[in-house]
Amino acid sequence: MTDIVLTTFDWVPEFPRGYVRDLRVRWALDEANLHYRVETVPFHDRGPEHFARQPFGQVPFLSDGDVRVFESGAILVHLGLRSPALMPEDPKSRGEVLQWVFAAVNSIETAALPWLLFQFAEDATRTPGRDRLDTYLNDRLDRMEEVLEGCEWLTGRFSIADILMADAFRLFDGSEVLAEYAACRAYVARATARPAFKKAHADQLAHFTAGD
Amino acid sequence: MTDIVLTTFDWVPEFPRGYVRDLRVRWALDEANLHYRVETVPFHDRGPEHFARQPFGQVPFLSDGDVRVFESGAILVHLGLRSPALMPEDPKSRGEVLQWVFAAVNSIETAALPWLLFQFAEDATRTPGRDRLDTYLNDRLDRMEEVLEGCEWLTGRFSIADILMADAFRLFDGSEVLAEYAACRAYVARATARPAFKKAHADQLAHFTAGD
Repeated sequence: MTDIVLTTFDWVPEFPRGYVRDLRVRWALDEANLHYRVETVPFHDRGPEHFARQPFGQVPFLSDGDVRVFESGAILVHLGLRSPALMPEDPKSRGEVLQWVFAAVNSIETAALPWLLFQFAEDATRTPGRDRLDTYLNDRLDRMEEVLEGCEWLTGRFSIADILMADAFRLFDGSEVLAEYAACRAYVARATARPAFKKAHADQLAHFTAGD
Repeated sequence: MTDIVLTTFDWVPEFPRGYVRDLRVRWALDEANLHYRVETVPFHDRGPEHFARQPFGQVPFLSDGDVRVFESGAILVHLGLRSPALMPEDPKSRGEVLQWVFAAVNSIETAALPWLLFQFAEDATRTPGRDRLDTYLNDRLDRMEEVLEGCEWLTGRFSIADILMADAFRLFDGSEVLAEYAACRAYVARATARPAFKKAHADQLAHFTAGD
């Protein structure tokens, strides 16, 4: 057993709690029953050591023995390659998981993250570019709705792809974006009902509360 | 040797030629000296068989024996796991490649793709959300500039991470976005000077020209 260390912030404001991306890593580690410990970097005054580990000054990042990885998606693929509970080992099933991993981070989040930036800015101005962005988002959700009407999880069984896709959809929490997408909502509900999600979520909240 | 089949469109308009994402896959396959053949799906009238292989009705997708993968990022990781020329096998070096793979698709393209949608819409309206999006993009490029000032490639040697990052930066071709980012521009120039990029690019142009 190697020593797995997950690094997150020492504290964050109230708003992002429950959504900081160390949640995805905690969730995956809990699904795989992998023991880990948590270290922190300051939320305020991010120093050169932090940027040396995470070039955008974000969290999470992981150490697993001598392996060091940032980007939650990369950490999950790393963990998937070490734990068949998270990603099957045979190349055919692994390919299915990988394609949905990238669908989540590159086809859904490329639409969802800019949507969230406009929400943060409380910007409701309709412009041609904004319309283009919304069309892009809704086209993607239309397609995901069709996919999720036909399956419990994105591949034959729960995997890191479901962690990333469900957590991408959680960016819409508190909004009406998924109102017309019943299968997407049911999928998020299914994913977040898993004991490993509940534990990861509670652990993140407890961690940041302790930093208050 | 398995039979590798790359599927792309039969034709695309002039504008995206040289930028369709089968380019990334051709580039990786050429870097690894893997032989492949090309099949096509109609650009117009995308049918249910296409959506069954690529849920967003896009290209590329790949067959590699019985492995089937869509999403260019997923295809490159699949190829990386089969070819050490594209991604080292030891978990430490592999983790370094994976983190930059996800940085390209989830930290850079989440900023670059929405920027491109506003370009397509010829939308120059300044709104608070748009400002937030531009700040997000420039913050990321500031950080990448610092990273690329210190290295030839993102990891010790050229890998799939460089294909994805350089191709993400190519979204800014023809714009002034990278004007202040000399190291980013030099990096793209280095990457696109590689024989495998030149071959992939020429092959894509020839393919779509043949479809005219």
